[in-house]
Amino acid sequence: MPKAGTARSIYLGLREQIAGGVYLPGDRLPSTRTLAEEFGVSRTTVTAAFEQLISEGYVSVRQGAKATVARNAPNPIAPPTQRPGGSVKTLSAYAMRAMDLLPHLPGTADLKYDFRYGDVAPDDFPKLLWRKALTAAVIARRARLGYGHPAGSPVLRQALQGYLWRARGIRCQAEQIVVTNGSQQALDLCARALLNPGDRVLIEEPCYAMARNVFVTLGAQATPVACDDDGLKTDRLPDPLSHALAFVTPSHQFPLGGVLSVGRRRQLVEWAEAADAHVIEDDYDGEYRYDVRPIPPLYLSGRDRVIYIGTVSKTLSPTLRLGYLVLPEALVEPFVRCKQITDRHGATFEQEALASLIETGAYERHVRKMRRLNSVRRTAFLDAMQQTFSDKVEIVGTSAGLHVVVWFNSIGRREESGLAATAREAGIGIYPISRLFSCDTERRAGFVFGYASIEARKIADGVKLLYSVLTL
Amino acid sequence: MPKAGTARSIYLGLREQIAGGVYLPGDRLPSTRTLAEEFGVSRTTVTAAFEQLISEGYVSVRQGAKATVARNAPNPIAPPTQRPGGSVKTLSAYAMRAMDLLPHLPGTADLKYDFRYGDVAPDDFPKLLWRKALTAAVIARRARLGYGHPAGSPVLRQALQGYLWRARGIRCQAEQIVVTNGSQQALDLCARALLNPGDRVLIEEPCYAMARNVFVTLGAQATPVACDDDGLKTDRLPDPLSHALAFVTPSHQFPLGGVLSVGRRRQLVEWAEAADAHVIEDDYDGEYRYDVRPIPPLYLSGRDRVIYIGTVSKTLSPTLRLGYLVLPEALVEPFVRCKQITDRHGATFEQEALASLIETGAYERHVRKMRRLNSVRRTAFLDAMQQTFSDKVEIVGTSAGLHVVVWFNSIGRREESGLAATAREAGIGIYPISRLFSCDTERRAGFVFGYASIEARKIADGVKLLYSVLTL
Repeated sequence: MPKAGTARSIYLGLREQIAGGVYLPGDRLPSTRTLAEEFGVSRTTVTAAFEQLISEGYVSVRQGAKATVARNAPNPIAPPTQRPGGSVKTLSAYAMRAMDLLPHLPGTADLKYDFRYGDVAPDDFPKLLWRKALTAAVIARRARLGYGHPAGSPVLRQALQGYLWRARGIRCQAEQIVVTNGSQQALDLCARALLNPGDRVLIEEPCYAMARNVFVTLGAQATPVACDDDGLKTDRLPDPLSHALAFVTPSHQFPLGGVLSVGRRRQLVEWAEAADAHVIEDDYDGEYRYDVRPIPPLYLSGRDRVIYIGTVSKTLSPTLRLGYLVLPEALVEPFVRCKQITDRHGATFEQEALASLIETGAYERHVRKMRRLNSVRRTAFLDAMQQTFSDKVEIVGTSAGLHVVVWFNSIGRREESGLAATAREAGIGIYPISRLFSCDTERRAGFVFGYASIEARKIADGVKLLYSVLTL
Repeated sequence: MPKAGTARSIYLGLREQIAGGVYLPGDRLPSTRTLAEEFGVSRTTVTAAFEQLISEGYVSVRQGAKATVARNAPNPIAPPTQRPGGSVKTLSAYAMRAMDLLPHLPGTADLKYDFRYGDVAPDDFPKLLWRKALTAAVIARRARLGYGHPAGSPVLRQALQGYLWRARGIRCQAEQIVVTNGSQQALDLCARALLNPGDRVLIEEPCYAMARNVFVTLGAQATPVACDDDGLKTDRLPDPLSHALAFVTPSHQFPLGGVLSVGRRRQLVEWAEAADAHVIEDDYDGEYRYDVRPIPPLYLSGRDRVIYIGTVSKTLSPTLRLGYLVLPEALVEPFVRCKQITDRHGATFEQEALASLIETGAYERHVRKMRRLNSVRRTAFLDAMQQTFSDKVEIVGTSAGLHVVVWFNSIGRREESGLAATAREAGIGIYPISRLFSCDTERRAGFVFGYASIEARKIADGVKLLYSVLTL
């Protein structure tokens, strides 16, 4: 159960009141000030709850006006947790912490222009290639059909070894690779195998929320370190004492887009050595670099300290749930054990399908095609932003990846949820950067814009519509 | 790192010496007595290490003779954990406990007759059906391609709801179903969401090893409760105090095959209420009942206390990694949160393929076909055992499932690994029951025989060959 007075308890309470008809569609909700007094919390806490309700479509807020219940509020995704009997008091500390997080709901298909980061365009997925490779795996003759190796199918580990060398300059043994259900499970395995509750984890500020959630739910304490254009500000590295892990995105800081400079890489690895800690390198979009050569992975500068995480979520599809770890040798067996206890191993056919795509070169051809397509989308987006929002915004992190951060120069961060709600009512999904920050400081309003899931020819229309409804 | 003096440390040490050439193929290994003195441990501990080496094919033991290094010892699956630098000291308590378990290696295809439990016959897998359903999912038009709902694809949860009602008499909401990567992840989610380190978990004695591993690795304490022909002996239920969970296989106790009687079901649920604990019902082979009607799930007798786990590992294939939980309503949201943090959600295409198989009735037709095929295998196995081993063995748990337990009447449990090694050299895989027991008591030698992965016409030959090599 969420503790009373958390953003989550307020969120849940309001959601239940909306679902239960206490507030009807179109009704005004009490102001954040009133609710803050009622619950005995800060307005920031109430705002966080509101932002969640807004992003889920329960509540809408016209700029400046009070929040109202949305006309088409969805049904809650899960039944309410309250019930007679109350066996939820048997929840573990882990689950209680999970319940205290703001929920991270999947997207919906009801927006006309959705700048959600993480989706890919349905038409980009190589259906025929994947169908062919998957079919071959399904109908292949097998001597046995039983549980596979917990580290993954040998053919995929072998194929990834070659791919990592060609694409990212990583030389490793196939035995160092552990296949996971997407990068999320890779993060979770790192947390399980390397963290005890109470340990400290260095994270970036702002930080990929689903990584932070993994560490915090396990009971670790996150130490956020600010980032600038060169990534993590290593002059602000904390005392290594009791830090067991660091999580970084050195090739393309998520979400700000900085590249960790060479000097900072050295400092981070030295810090990890002083802490006797490992560094997780989440190379979530290393394939997408438009201006210059690909950035070499941190893995190359700190081999025995760095755990590399890769994924095909951005190149093929996030629905495939295929990711992988490259581990220092000493960690292979512990991780394999943890993976086996967690879910035995990944699905065999899909692993073999990916292996065959990599082996035939089809995967790398597809990645090149995707890089071209997304380069076109990126240009379309940046051009349209320049033509409309012009100097009202600052756009950062444009040289790589599938997203940028847009700062609204003359608008404060508290306006983010109002702007998102206004955009949503016009059929446009935009996503406040707030939830990626651990600390609450005054700054401009910012949004993470993903452009990979929108057809290039529609991007300019979406941006223009956004500009017209936001009336900055 | 495994603690010195554990079976695992001895296993690892010997394995390394074999891999490193200290002992060459055909060399005799020191006796268990010598090694026990050398390591300062009991002979039981050394025997456990030997059993592991034997089951992995590193060591062979002819009955009565000393252990020797196998002629075709495999290469270790993972690099040795020792290395200079030693960052393994940063392992979490969780990973350390995982390292202390005996490893659970996947099978190989090098045996002529493999009575391994859990495999299915490659020819039983409905390749064409699965290919068709999977292809349809891959090429389906989608409005978006992004992360899915953490509880699973709505179409699959809906299809499972209908299936559970038709096949198992379970009435639940689709919202109570959470799709997992096989039943292993379902068990792991139960442990994460409901157990804190130090909590007690009631398990069966003997018990499915991979369930026990989940609980023990999380730091819980397992309380084994003996089983007889009616399943768990509820007159031996422990003090409910500090028990947070119970794990049972009420429809077909694994491995002994007992069915939990109605009175015992009531007692178990009452115990769970006294403990304020949940009961996990692992319905791992509920589809396979040959003599009588299917046994109703425990879920029906203790709705709010019982968490039901189902899987398609026994009906389709364990390589698909598709399982599911049916949860009391109060647990849905906590489990969905934990699932999302763990790996976001299961792979979409496979979930949709299974949904379509269930919706069209193809899945249930396939299950009926599998029941007929495995009924034939079961009869072939039992007849062959009767004709060869006759009253030298007692066979239990024959009325359901895909395995039986064979007790060797005049042979003690210490002979199990010798018998398994002898069988292995003749190309036959048989699997000692020892690793399923938590406590070490004197008893007859026993083996879990799975018959689902061998062609029916070959079963009698395998049994005859086994009889001829074991020379009882």
